[in-house]
Amino acid sequence: MRIVYTDNNATTRVLPEVLEEMLPYFSDQYGNPSSMHSFGGNVGKKIDEAREKTASIINADASEIVFTSCGTESDNAAIMAALELNPDKKHIVTSSVEHPAVRNLCRFLEEKKGYRVTFVPVDSKGNLDMDMLHTSMSRDTAVISLMWANNETGVIFPVEEVSRKAREKGILFHTDAVQAAGKIPMDVKNNPGIDMLSLSGHKIHAPKGVAALYVKKGIKFPPFMKGGHQEKGRRGGTENTTSIIGLGRACELALGHLQDMDTRIRGLRDRLQSELLSMIPASSVNGDIDRRLPNTLSIGFNAIEGESILLLMDQAGICASSGSACTSGSLDPSHVLMAMKVPFESAHGTIRFSLSTDTSSEDIDYIIEKMPPIVQRLRDMSPFWKK
Amino acid sequence: MRIVYTDNNATTRVLPEVLEEMLPYFSDQYGNPSSMHSFGGNVGKKIDEAREKTASIINADASEIVFTSCGTESDNAAIMAALELNPDKKHIVTSSVEHPAVRNLCRFLEEKKGYRVTFVPVDSKGNLDMDMLHTSMSRDTAVISLMWANNETGVIFPVEEVSRKAREKGILFHTDAVQAAGKIPMDVKNNPGIDMLSLSGHKIHAPKGVAALYVKKGIKFPPFMKGGHQEKGRRGGTENTTSIIGLGRACELALGHLQDMDTRIRGLRDRLQSELLSMIPASSVNGDIDRRLPNTLSIGFNAIEGESILLLMDQAGICASSGSACTSGSLDPSHVLMAMKVPFESAHGTIRFSLSTDTSSEDIDYIIEKMPPIVQRLRDMSPFWKK
Repeated sequence: MRIVYTDNNATTRVLPEVLEEMLPYFSDQYGNPSSMHSFGGNVGKKIDEAREKTASIINADASEIVFTSCGTESDNAAIMAALELNPDKKHIVTSSVEHPAVRNLCRFLEEKKGYRVTFVPVDSKGNLDMDMLHTSMSRDTAVISLMWANNETGVIFPVEEVSRKAREKGILFHTDAVQAAGKIPMDVKNNPGIDMLSLSGHKIHAPKGVAALYVKKGIKFPPFMKGGHQEKGRRGGTENTTSIIGLGRACELALGHLQDMDTRIRGLRDRLQSELLSMIPASSVNGDIDRRLPNTLSIGFNAIEGESILLLMDQAGICASSGSACTSGSLDPSHVLMAMKVPFESAHGTIRFSLSTDTSSEDIDYIIEKMPPIVQRLRDMSPFWKK
Repeated sequence: MRIVYTDNNATTRVLPEVLEEMLPYFSDQYGNPSSMHSFGGNVGKKIDEAREKTASIINADASEIVFTSCGTESDNAAIMAALELNPDKKHIVTSSVEHPAVRNLCRFLEEKKGYRVTFVPVDSKGNLDMDMLHTSMSRDTAVISLMWANNETGVIFPVEEVSRKAREKGILFHTDAVQAAGKIPMDVKNNPGIDMLSLSGHKIHAPKGVAALYVKKGIKFPPFMKGGHQEKGRRGGTENTTSIIGLGRACELALGHLQDMDTRIRGLRDRLQSELLSMIPASSVNGDIDRRLPNTLSIGFNAIEGESILLLMDQAGICASSGSACTSGSLDPSHVLMAMKVPFESAHGTIRFSLSTDTSSEDIDYIIEKMPPIVQRLRDMSPFWKK
């Protein structure tokens, strides 16, 4: 059966070029980079190369990259480091639409560790309440953690502006850039207010289980994972060599694909959006269409259930998501759509299509052909649908 | 050049059968197991299979296995969970020869978080001071963390006995079994005093960057990595699918290789030991030769430096270690040898050979041929060597 994969904000295909780069390091050059023998040392050199390439995707220095195991670890490590560095400050600023890796850690810190957390709200388009954000910053604020782009709607936050403000006030600023990477350009040298930034491999065609945290030069980063001397004492644990090597190659490729993402993929997404909106009545886009990642379309179909839509899409070979894959398992609308106060009837019927540079024009044709009858079929059965 | 790899306590070769099992999940079946579509769901089923296989290496139930990113994470997660579960207890018991993943976390908790830590000493053979261990357990003890086998010397701790005692006293017991796995049989069902147990993939021919933590049924494990609902809420972060699948296969193979480890590999190690001891004067074995992993030989050559020996061995294509790979980078004898009070002159000249079921009789012949002239050459140059 034909599979059309438009769930790239959940995870991506490992590119053949990435896998090819990794393969020699499983069973041939498998040494431990910490070892004294050259069999291990050679692997260390390859990791240095991967660090350079990973740094380049955000215009950082190689020394500012700490490899981790996943975006969640990068986010947890960044926030915990900021708190450790500011033992007397007990306030955290974040948004109401963050990924669970930030959201659930902040809730834990609030409920169990005596921190005060401001979850800055968003408007109906998913844009931050900037007034509230500014007034929430105080002398007691240890860290501001804001995602660069939202995983569900693709809405882009004004990270450059907020990080500048944070810097003026001497507040550490972290951004979860897991969804922005490979989709829009990012430059930490031009944004010195960004102190820490999370990246994840499997959203940019590297394998699952590898990620990175940018830590700006000069920050005395206390390790989240306490153990050996790896990553210059910033992360204990034997290096995940093959995947780190894959991540480096994937970052290199992603940089090269940014133009394609901004033009061809944006065009495909826009065509998908306008066709679905015009062919399917009572449908609407979630999130600010003028401040969005080029690959993401979150679209609500009134009066039907996202899970049922996905089921029929699955039968047609189309992979997508009804919310964040990380929070699936619940039938409530996602916390992101709830924070945006998306009307109940369209939030429940929301589907997220997320493209990648793998996506072809034929894939989009196929989805445009299949979606209207799927929605119609469910609406025909729905007690909430009135013609 | 011929490479003889005897540094398997540092890391191991990924077995071809393991890589073969992983390969389809990089670029073909690359879905996110959390996704609603069957493309992702099928990967979830494969992870369930890997969980069964991983559990079998310690005779646990699949539901008791939490996948993590490395042994260090498993150790950190176990100890932090124990403290979280016992917020009023401020004492930790561990040994003086633990891996940095336990040792450095405990030091951090002691220096920064107000915990009292007892580092139970060992004798000159590396065996635990059992009297001190027993008297150190108190009502204030939140957790006992003891390695099952030492990475440097291979000395096996009486984990069954200590965990029984801990259970009688109602103290949570964790064991870092990273080095024991695949080398000696382990059974958690027969040892209900073991509450948590760390395993690591890359020590048993799975890739680096994947590991597991056994958490006994009934323990309300608070996640170390706070994020999504993955691993039944016990570890946030998208599953490292390919490596988890590899870990499952590696555990299955390791179980099948236990007999070979106990007979053939033990025989090779014993032959290496007796030949080196008889051919090289002023050499001695570190650790209790009667309570040791079958694959490990830590041997000290008086009056010369481990790093120089490694250098000449490297030129001969022999990979080994002068201490734990995790702590290399320093010229001091390792904390393990220091805790055992190994005399300075042999501690400095200590080499660890660690075999795996990959090791052949010819490999051992080659080492036996090469080592005596290497040691002799260095001794000829050494001001500390008197004939």
